[in-house]
Amino acid sequence: MIGQKVKEILLENEEYFLVSADNVATLQDTNSLEHAFLVLTNIGYSRIPVVDRKEKLVGSVSLSMVVEVMIDTESINPDKLSEVLVSDVMDKDVKSLKQPFEIEKILNLLVDANFVPVVDDDGVFKGIVTRKEILKSVNHLAHEIESRYALQTK
Amino acid sequence: MIGQKVKEILLENEEYFLVSADNVATLQDTNSLEHAFLVLTNIGYSRIPVVDRKEKLVGSVSLSMVVEVMIDTESINPDKLSEVLVSDVMDKDVKSLKQPFEIEKILNLLVDANFVPVVDDDGVFKGIVTRKEILKSVNHLAHEIESRYALQTK
Repeated sequence: MIGQKVKEILLENEEYFLVSADNVATLQDTNSLEHAFLVLTNIGYSRIPVVDRKEKLVGSVSLSMVVEVMIDTESINPDKLSEVLVSDVMDKDVKSLKQPFEIEKILNLLVDANFVPVVDDDGVFKGIVTRKEILKSVNHLAHEIESRYALQTK
Repeated sequence: MIGQKVKEILLENEEYFLVSADNVATLQDTNSLEHAFLVLTNIGYSRIPVVDRKEKLVGSVSLSMVVEVMIDTESINPDKLSEVLVSDVMDKDVKSLKQPFEIEKILNLLVDANFVPVVDDDGVFKGIVTRKEILKSVNHLAHEIESRYALQTK
């Protein structure tokens, strides 16, 4: 269990934890991989969330997953991209968070993923929590805790 | 400044911080982007370190940087990959670490990068420190500190 004082310090930057959906590039599950390729290359992120037409989170897709489809034994064939949909290659096993945030869960999920999507009770995509923002909070914690508190061995 | 007790807990997993060069896929600066494309797609990482023929760290390259070269106005042209070298597109401004590790520096650099390369005094690539391993240590810190110490407001 994470102690109360550690939680408090980690959550002092909580307002910055959520990168809101308006500021996150996403793909739709019905997009072609040709479109996905251009979006992913353009934004320079290696993986982004996938939503359906009701804005519900349905998965995530990485540039690797997209370009793998182009590899034809040893040659590279971009024509294949227009024949395959995002839903055909996406990772459907995406763990998500709800608000209010549990810092314990965030820290756990970010060990294995660069970002964790946030959804509301209906599964609608609200944004992401990134390793970058959490690592800023961790820096804050590491610097603050011993200047605020005297630590005495129990 | 990070306090001594926080440092101690964060460094308890230090032996796992370094993923040694033997276990990290790298590219050489003289490799073609065609080779880089196949390596990056094959390993599934979005960015890897680049070394010269003396194993010195000279940069890093991402799958995005490679595939961007294939984009020809709106069509995708893989033929270009064989004409361009890794050194032509790589990010040369790569911050690195030396051992013994300073936890303060690691936490700082990992806010902006998924991994930080480690070099020896001659600049030879020794491995990487990843956000994944550091986030494990952070979890350890968050869980341990208040069970080991009583925190009293200063």
